[in-house]
Amino acid sequence: MKDILCNIQPINKETGEKVKKYLDTLTKPPGSLGRLEDLVVQLAEITSESFPVVTPPGVIVFAADHGVVDEGVSAFPQEVTAQMVANFLQGGAAINVFSKQIGAYFEIVDVGVVSDLDSHGVINRKIRYGTANFCKEDAMTREEAEEAIKVGYEQAEKMMKDKGIKCLILGEMGIGNTTASSAILSILSGKSIEKLVGHGTGISNEQVLHKQKIILQGIEARKPDRNDPIDVLAKVGGLEIAAMTGAMLAAAAHNIPILVDGFICSVAAVLATKLCSNTKGYMIIGHRSVENGHQVAIQLLEKQPILDLGLRLGEGSGAAVAFPILQSATLMLKNMATFTSAGVTNKE
Amino acid sequence: MKDILCNIQPINKETGEKVKKYLDTLTKPPGSLGRLEDLVVQLAEITSESFPVVTPPGVIVFAADHGVVDEGVSAFPQEVTAQMVANFLQGGAAINVFSKQIGAYFEIVDVGVVSDLDSHGVINRKIRYGTANFCKEDAMTREEAEEAIKVGYEQAEKMMKDKGIKCLILGEMGIGNTTASSAILSILSGKSIEKLVGHGTGISNEQVLHKQKIILQGIEARKPDRNDPIDVLAKVGGLEIAAMTGAMLAAAAHNIPILVDGFICSVAAVLATKLCSNTKGYMIIGHRSVENGHQVAIQLLEKQPILDLGLRLGEGSGAAVAFPILQSATLMLKNMATFTSAGVTNKE
Repeated sequence: MKDILCNIQPINKETGEKVKKYLDTLTKPPGSLGRLEDLVVQLAEITSESFPVVTPPGVIVFAADHGVVDEGVSAFPQEVTAQMVANFLQGGAAINVFSKQIGAYFEIVDVGVVSDLDSHGVINRKIRYGTANFCKEDAMTREEAEEAIKVGYEQAEKMMKDKGIKCLILGEMGIGNTTASSAILSILSGKSIEKLVGHGTGISNEQVLHKQKIILQGIEARKPDRNDPIDVLAKVGGLEIAAMTGAMLAAAAHNIPILVDGFICSVAAVLATKLCSNTKGYMIIGHRSVENGHQVAIQLLEKQPILDLGLRLGEGSGAAVAFPILQSATLMLKNMATFTSAGVTNKE
Repeated sequence: MKDILCNIQPINKETGEKVKKYLDTLTKPPGSLGRLEDLVVQLAEITSESFPVVTPPGVIVFAADHGVVDEGVSAFPQEVTAQMVANFLQGGAAINVFSKQIGAYFEIVDVGVVSDLDSHGVINRKIRYGTANFCKEDAMTREEAEEAIKVGYEQAEKMMKDKGIKCLILGEMGIGNTTASSAILSILSGKSIEKLVGHGTGISNEQVLHKQKIILQGIEARKPDRNDPIDVLAKVGGLEIAAMTGAMLAAAAHNIPILVDGFICSVAAVLATKLCSNTKGYMIIGHRSVENGHQVAIQLLEKQPILDLGLRLGEGSGAAVAFPILQSATLMLKNMATFTSAGVTNKE
C-alpha cells in the first residue's frame, strides 16, 4: 500500500492562478461563466496544463456482491448483480447509454460477484465470491481489502496508459452496496446511521428501519477502527468500493481528474482521501444524489456537486451525465477569443 | 399577430403518460433517474413522440441596441454589441464554443444594431437602428414590436424547416438589455424594481442604484399597460427580446422544445406565455442565472432550471451548456434495455 500512496502530489495551484488570469481576458464579463470557470481552474491545477483536456474519458464499473443481503436489506435479489453485469455487456444499462454519449472507454471488472461470470467482456479480477455477512463475520480480510484496492489501482492505471483517458469516471454494481457504504460512512464521519440510511434502490420506511438496525448490529459486532480506513473496508466494506478507492488513487497519482458519482462512489472517495489527503484535489463531484448519506460524504469531501437532478441510480451514471459540463469548461478556455484578438472593447 | 398565436396547441399529456409507464420497465429502480425522467416525459408531451429526439439543436442569436444606454446603465459601451456580433461570426464567443460542442446550427440575426454590419454571415432583418431611450420616448412603435416578433417567428420557422432542428436555443446580444428586461419584468410581475435589478455584466452597487432609478423613471414616463405584452415591449422593451419571443411562439407552434437561457431569454419567455399561455408547456429552463430578476421570471414560468452553475453571460450560453442533459434523457429512454429484454429480475 505504501508505494501506492506516496505517488500522489498536491495539485498545482500555480497553473490554476495563470488560468484564472487568462479567463479574464476572454470575451465575456469577468466571472460570468461561474462554475465553468472554477472547474477549468481546478482541471488546470490537476493536470498542470494551461489548456487542460478531459477527452477521452474512461468509465470503469466494478462489480461485487455483499453477504449482508442475507439480512434482507435490499429491494432487489442478489442475482441482479450478475444479471446487471450481463446487461452492461449488452450495452443496455444507463451507464452504457451515457458512456456512449460522451465517447468514453468503458470497462466492467468483476472483483467479487458471487457467481462465475462466463460472459465475454468482463475483466475477471475476482478476489472472492462476494463479501461475508458483516453481521456475522468480517466482510473480508485485511489482505483482501488491500488486494481489491490494488486491483482498482491497476485497472485504472492500465486504462490511463492503454487508452490515454483524460478523466476517470467510476461506477459500481453490487446489490447491497448502499448498506456497506452507509456503514463505512457512519464510522468515518461519526454521524448516526439514521442520518445516512436512505431508501437505496427503493425500500419502504419499515425496511429503512430494518436496514439501519442491521448496520448498527454490524458496526457493534465488528468494531472497525475509524482511524484505519483499510480496517473499516475489511470489516464492513465491499470489494467494489475498495476497488473504486484504488482506482481514484491511481488517477490522482497520474494527474487525471476523478469525476465522482453518487453515494457509493463518494464513500470510496472519502476512503481515498483518508488514505491520502492529496487525493481530494483531484476530485470533482458530478452530481448530488438524493441518497441521504451523499450529503454527508459531500461535506467530508468539501465539494459542491456540478448537477442536482435527483438521481439515485449509481453505476457512475450521474458522473457520466455531468461530463459534458467539464468538456464545456475546457472548450471555453481553449476556444474563446480574447478581447484583444476579437477587437472587442473591454469594460469601461 | 392573431394568426401566429392561434397555432399553438396544448402539449400532449397522453404521450407523456405512456412514456412514464415505459420508463418503469427500464433496467433501473423506478424514478432513479430523477429529473432526466421528467425531462423526457415533457419532451414526449411536446413532440407527441414516444421516443423524442432533440438533435440537431439550433441556436439563433438576435442582436440589437438599446437607446437607454445613454443613461449610463451598462458596464460596456454600446459599440460592443456590433463588436460582439463580429466575434460571433469569427466563432470566438462563448455561445460559438458551446454551439459547436453540441453540434448546433448557429445563426446570428441583426434586428436592430445601431450600426450597419457589413460582415458576411449576419442575417440582416434590422427593424430600426436601436431602440429609443425609454426615459425620453417609447423604445419603439407598436408596429415595430410586432414586426420584431414576426421576424423572430420567421427566422425560427425557417431554421426548423430548412435544417430540421429538434430543439431551439435562443440567445441575445445587446448592450443595455438587462435594463430593458428588468423594466419589462417589473411591469409583468408587479415586483418592485429593487428585487429585479442586479449587477448585469458587472456594475457597482452605486451603478445598480442608478440603473434602478432610470428604470423607474422610464416606467413612470411610459406607463405601459401590463395586460398588453406588446405595449410593454414597445414602450420599454428591446428588438432582440421581441424577436426571441416570436421565435418561441414559432417553436411551440411546430411542437419543438424551447431550451430557455438566463434572465433576458426568460423575460422573452414570460412575454411569449402572456401572448399565448400554451407556449409554457414547450419551455424547459436550461439554467438558473445569478441575475436577481431571473428568479422572478422562473417563478412566473413555473419551472425548475436544469443547471445551477452561477452563470450570467447570456448569448444562449447556459442553455447550450444544459443541452447535453436533454440529450442524455432522450438517449436513456431510447437505448436502455427493459427488465424483460435484459433478463434482469425486477424488484421483489
